[in-house]
Amino acid sequence: MAPAIDAARVIADLRELARRTGDEGGAQRVCWTRGWESARDFLRELLGELDLAAEVDEAGNLWARLEGANPDAPALALGSHLDSVPDGGWLDGSLGVLAALGALRAHAQGAPPRSLILVDWADEEGSRFGRSLFGSSAFSGSLDPVQARDLRDADGRPMAEVLAEYGVELERARESGARAAGLSAYLELHIEQGPRMEAAGRRVAAVSGCAGVERFRLTFRGQASHAGTTPMDARRDAGLAAAQAALAIGAIPAAEGGVATTGELRLEPGIPTAVAGKAELSVDLRNPEAPALARMLAAARAAAAAAAGRHGCELTESPLWRIEPIPFDPELLGAARDACASVAGSAAELASGALHDAAEVARVLPAAMLFAPSRGGISHAAEEDTDEADLAIAIETLGELVNRVLAR
Amino acid sequence: MAPAIDAARVIADLRELARRTGDEGGAQRVCWTRGWESARDFLRELLGELDLAAEVDEAGNLWARLEGANPDAPALALGSHLDSVPDGGWLDGSLGVLAALGALRAHAQGAPPRSLILVDWADEEGSRFGRSLFGSSAFSGSLDPVQARDLRDADGRPMAEVLAEYGVELERARESGARAAGLSAYLELHIEQGPRMEAAGRRVAAVSGCAGVERFRLTFRGQASHAGTTPMDARRDAGLAAAQAALAIGAIPAAEGGVATTGELRLEPGIPTAVAGKAELSVDLRNPEAPALARMLAAARAAAAAAAGRHGCELTESPLWRIEPIPFDPELLGAARDACASVAGSAAELASGALHDAAEVARVLPAAMLFAPSRGGISHAAEEDTDEADLAIAIETLGELVNRVLAR
Repeated sequence: MAPAIDAARVIADLRELARRTGDEGGAQRVCWTRGWESARDFLRELLGELDLAAEVDEAGNLWARLEGANPDAPALALGSHLDSVPDGGWLDGSLGVLAALGALRAHAQGAPPRSLILVDWADEEGSRFGRSLFGSSAFSGSLDPVQARDLRDADGRPMAEVLAEYGVELERARESGARAAGLSAYLELHIEQGPRMEAAGRRVAAVSGCAGVERFRLTFRGQASHAGTTPMDARRDAGLAAAQAALAIGAIPAAEGGVATTGELRLEPGIPTAVAGKAELSVDLRNPEAPALARMLAAARAAAAAAAGRHGCELTESPLWRIEPIPFDPELLGAARDACASVAGSAAELASGALHDAAEVARVLPAAMLFAPSRGGISHAAEEDTDEADLAIAIETLGELVNRVLAR
Repeated sequence: MAPAIDAARVIADLRELARRTGDEGGAQRVCWTRGWESARDFLRELLGELDLAAEVDEAGNLWARLEGANPDAPALALGSHLDSVPDGGWLDGSLGVLAALGALRAHAQGAPPRSLILVDWADEEGSRFGRSLFGSSAFSGSLDPVQARDLRDADGRPMAEVLAEYGVELERARESGARAAGLSAYLELHIEQGPRMEAAGRRVAAVSGCAGVERFRLTFRGQASHAGTTPMDARRDAGLAAAQAALAIGAIPAAEGGVATTGELRLEPGIPTAVAGKAELSVDLRNPEAPALARMLAAARAAAAAAAGRHGCELTESPLWRIEPIPFDPELLGAARDACASVAGSAAELASGALHDAAEVARVLPAAMLFAPSRGGISHAAEEDTDEADLAIAIETLGELVNRVLAR
């Protein structure tokens, strides 16, 4: 019989991690801080119980290897990230790392058919420098070290200087990618961070891929004028143009699926007694299907142009960020569905609206993910939680998936 | 023949005032500053040419009196304000004060049938402490000195302390109103500060009254959530609720007349990757007719409630400011129309969307106003301007109106 993961022990490890690195505000494991170091110290302790050593690569990612019966066969990697946002939740990232450790623990009794690797990606959240997926994008090669060099934290300290204190040379971070050569696949368990699984009564799900993102800022330029003396038909109200665009963009998913968000809206002069002469509106469009995402982008641009025209404004667009949709490996996804069916009794599948380290890894390796549900859909907050019974099923499903992949 | 006002001299005085108290940024005559004092020094010089002395009352208003043939008859007051916003225009306020001086100058050759009074109201703009119409509302008795005492300027200095340096005791400011007993009426020439006269080809107009204002802030409370993981149908987007409310409120004047402005809109957390959990929207409604203004208010509240309901948000409202519509004296308004017809060939009339000292004065005295057009509708900016030919007609119309009122 294949080794079984001890889900209760994984949950106990998660509780102990929260105790050591959290406070009443939530998890305090922002990458490149003392709290994050404490989390890794705890991970090293747990690895030490299995007589496994941790290695940190050129990007600050932490690796540990449980040698397999055939040490020349490419290894199976499991992981996620220990870092959190400030006042974060106890499960975001750490669930996947400590469940991966649970899988190594399960197989440490004997030798797995091929080596099992645990990886704790550095700085998934990007909380300190605003650059998400740092370690995994260094590994995948998509990190641009020149762009990263200009990033500074809230105190104005450059990223390169802070990372050097942790032994990471920004220019060499992508050398982390050399480790891909020894790996056959990557698996990651994470919480959903949204309400869909809870609403559907799902306790675990296979993730089909990560949605692509088009994120940009629209600037509407009209004419600031006196609220009392400017007739309605003489106004060029940039605020109303932005409002019209926001509502139209919010309606796009009804036709195309995905999600559309206009979370930032700033008016100038921005006072009650003046018509707004300028409005800046952020747009964040996500869709797991590239053609649908392209149609969403076209529809958002058309809606913005129509709103600008209606209110006599000029319109400009500046890019913020974009990433294409990343589907996970079809074979691994099938195995993940089978593992869900085997452990939870049904084979749920959904696309991730958020990005994860697995999306970066998928650029260079077959990768797949499992989701555990998030109570109330809440994440990045102290209230983030998942019922322990659901956590146990998700952890056991990861163990089952590892066994299935190792058996292939 | 009745004395004729010398419009060219008034315009020359305005140019000299601009030279003395303006810079490349515009007029710098913010009340309770050195620039404002310089403007009053210049006014005193001009009064001195007519052997008239200036008196400053308990509210800081400056008065000068040209004695009439019958000194016991109630006097006719003319005026406006010399103070400006920072980087203001050359005409806003000062046109009315220097045209009033022009009327006194015209009548100083002989003695007018009753005394003519010039008044320069203090702090019409409220630029330093955020309290508009200070001097005229002290005169009318609507100023609340207790509320005013808490006001501070950008440096944190209390209004009472600064005004004391100018000889004004806040608690005694309303004693200024005692001067109303000796006055029969008040006339004010001002620029329109809007584009309606220019659009209609009007060179001077009688002002029927000042629009009432309902100004308040709406707060929509939804739920901040992750832009990637929150499905559209699970969102409570306060930003979209505010956007829907803004558009609906902007459409109200099409049915009710007046103007509606939503110039302030703030989102929280206000970042591209989060659905807004909170939105604050300012609403400024203006209408010269009280019943129409009441209907606008009801319509705005209904639109806000519908928008909140549509987006699953809670809605609260907090007051900012309100004033009822103030109609000018019907007899004086008729005289003003006649004066326009006599000088400009047609009797235009319009309501003011902005407030003016005359609206405060109208609470205690028969009052009326004339408007000169504003090129491009621009005011409160260095670009504020009116063609000299139009200025001359407006100034001559004030002279004509003064003669008509004196002759009654």
